[in-house]
Amino acid sequence: MKEVSGGVCAPKGFKAGGIWCGIKASSKKRDLALIYSEQNSTAAAMFTTNRVKAACVQVSQEHIAGGKLHAIIANSGNANACTGEAGLAAARRMAELAADEFALSPADVAVASTGVIGVPLPIAAIESSIGALANSLRGDAAGHAAALEAIMTTDTRVKEFSAEIEIDGIPVRLGGMVKGSGMIHPNMATMLCFITTDAVIDREPLNASLRSAVRRSFNRVTVDGDTSTNDMVIIMANGASGAPRITEGSPAYELFARTLHESCVKLARAMARDGEGASRLVTVTVNGAADETGAEILAKSVAASSLVKAACFGADANWGRILCALGYAGVEFDPRQTNVRFRSISGEEIAVCANGESIPFSEEQAKKILSGEEIEILVDVGAENGSATVWGCDLTYDYVKINGDYRS
Amino acid sequence: MKEVSGGVCAPKGFKAGGIWCGIKASSKKRDLALIYSEQNSTAAAMFTTNRVKAACVQVSQEHIAGGKLHAIIANSGNANACTGEAGLAAARRMAELAADEFALSPADVAVASTGVIGVPLPIAAIESSIGALANSLRGDAAGHAAALEAIMTTDTRVKEFSAEIEIDGIPVRLGGMVKGSGMIHPNMATMLCFITTDAVIDREPLNASLRSAVRRSFNRVTVDGDTSTNDMVIIMANGASGAPRITEGSPAYELFARTLHESCVKLARAMARDGEGASRLVTVTVNGAADETGAEILAKSVAASSLVKAACFGADANWGRILCALGYAGVEFDPRQTNVRFRSISGEEIAVCANGESIPFSEEQAKKILSGEEIEILVDVGAENGSATVWGCDLTYDYVKINGDYRS
Repeated sequence: MKEVSGGVCAPKGFKAGGIWCGIKASSKKRDLALIYSEQNSTAAAMFTTNRVKAACVQVSQEHIAGGKLHAIIANSGNANACTGEAGLAAARRMAELAADEFALSPADVAVASTGVIGVPLPIAAIESSIGALANSLRGDAAGHAAALEAIMTTDTRVKEFSAEIEIDGIPVRLGGMVKGSGMIHPNMATMLCFITTDAVIDREPLNASLRSAVRRSFNRVTVDGDTSTNDMVIIMANGASGAPRITEGSPAYELFARTLHESCVKLARAMARDGEGASRLVTVTVNGAADETGAEILAKSVAASSLVKAACFGADANWGRILCALGYAGVEFDPRQTNVRFRSISGEEIAVCANGESIPFSEEQAKKILSGEEIEILVDVGAENGSATVWGCDLTYDYVKINGDYRS
Repeated sequence: MKEVSGGVCAPKGFKAGGIWCGIKASSKKRDLALIYSEQNSTAAAMFTTNRVKAACVQVSQEHIAGGKLHAIIANSGNANACTGEAGLAAARRMAELAADEFALSPADVAVASTGVIGVPLPIAAIESSIGALANSLRGDAAGHAAALEAIMTTDTRVKEFSAEIEIDGIPVRLGGMVKGSGMIHPNMATMLCFITTDAVIDREPLNASLRSAVRRSFNRVTVDGDTSTNDMVIIMANGASGAPRITEGSPAYELFARTLHESCVKLARAMARDGEGASRLVTVTVNGAADETGAEILAKSVAASSLVKAACFGADANWGRILCALGYAGVEFDPRQTNVRFRSISGEEIAVCANGESIPFSEEQAKKILSGEEIEILVDVGAENGSATVWGCDLTYDYVKINGDYRS
């Protein structure tokens, strides 16, 4: 995998742009984004599992059903969720407005929104700015950056990737952006992720590679346990690379799927690190469980525990809370075979619990390791083969501050 | 129900005491408690569902199996969890030490511990203080208060009750104490609750009334979603009132069970209000669900949401987060039939969402209601009969502070 630049504009044939249309009334930051493919693209998507689905989720689910997309229009500052029939009409109108600019069918356009829930979407602001949005499209890194900025809310960092692989000697690119820092939990939450590729690939293998990548990346991020009404991940493949068609099971498919997975892991880690108020990225790996699913449930229980997260904030080697979180995860394991280690980004490790009991360790060294910007919690729960890694962050004063008065 | 005083010493024949034996080395606060009944008592108990069980939980489960208890010995400052065979031996020794003081069998004594996990219990400190502990026993409110103080950790308030009912004209009393403020979640967590009564009641009805009371009180409290290794609720009935035997299904049983339930609700609410760092008690009631279990799951999802809790801290009427939390609870309901209201302790109400959509309301009035020390979130999710109330608290800077460095 070769790293390139340009994000969603790195693959051939894609343009992106972003403007301020007035939804973020006070901050005047960009709030309206467009990603456009010159070619009609094969598309796959995954949506929130929340029973309360934003209007944009419902509309995009309908539009993606045909397996094709030409464009994605997205706004920040308003989630268009819990907005009833008027919200649904507004989401449909967003797709229509973008479609009209390029003589497309509204069904060729996906719609995404993120922001406050329960406030009517000011569709008039989008209507009056749609021409400017279309004019903002660029096929370079600046277009990508403008679109990415326009979908960000409490995010403090841009989260993006660009990658290049070769299929039969022909370069194929993937690029993507993700928005999300709060309400992030397994099953994707207030996360918008848009991925483009110029690979030539049918819907089935595209869908399979996306599901596999999301399962072991975004669905293994936990920030605060809340799952949003608006999440979506969309991938568009426009075939503009001219490379051979990628068919499921082929070496090219393995390469494509692996690249997509690694890129999604990169975005997922960036999202966890940018968790609301987070000061540290906390990676939890569980090994030795009965199976991967069990390992994942155990690891998520640790990463999602408020007490473990607060201990990480305090760089406190309070491994008892880790055992406690494993214990209530609902998965069978033997506490007497459980070991816990902490590791720093530089690879320095310290064992703090062996066979479920305390072992002597240097508190000073543990404090040093846990004071890093990235820390790993390594847990062995037995001798079986189930293994999983999840990503989270610490719980800080700033999380409370950010969420104590989000609307104001 | 007549309110009386004396806590666990209010019923006839019970004594209690508490001393400092040295486990809480730096604070020198009381850390060792004893509750003693002159008569051998019928006993029932419930224990943590965490797979990692403290040594005291394992020992008390064995001792309670016979359905009889004479005494409870409990320490704070050390959880005696994740302490292996040595921990089990220490828990057994605690029971033995208390038993020896009163010429009992160790199986007549329950053992409880609360505090830091993974540190060996300093049993020598308990051994050398057991005589002083026995001497501290008193049959009055002061004995109760000393025992209660000796089981508290991060608790900021005493949580206790005393009640008197009449059975065939003869007074029967119940009294209790609870310890717990962090790691509190459905299924009881780092919570120790000891209840005494001089009622004459067999084990079966005693057990039934305890289970029913705990289900609709302690198991409906959520502070931070973590479930501890050490929780237990024990009730001892010594029959000293001389009142008629309470048999299941009788009016006396209904009265006893209702009194026990109301008393447990009182303790549960006090525990939620004393949640670590909490500034407000948050009561969430869901009505109109398909059944009580569904209503309980929906209400817990709202009360446990970090985002809802942070909004309560900020007195922010962000009802969208409530709908979001309902949506990911995993229970069927129709968001389009969902209404949300906030209510203050004085009964002032404000509706903020009707039929799943925003309705106009005064932000100023909502802020005033949500700024109270006790707030209620009232949710209707349909027209069916399932209803449940749960208790939680807000998420504050102090929660992070308390848990960022608990061990130091």
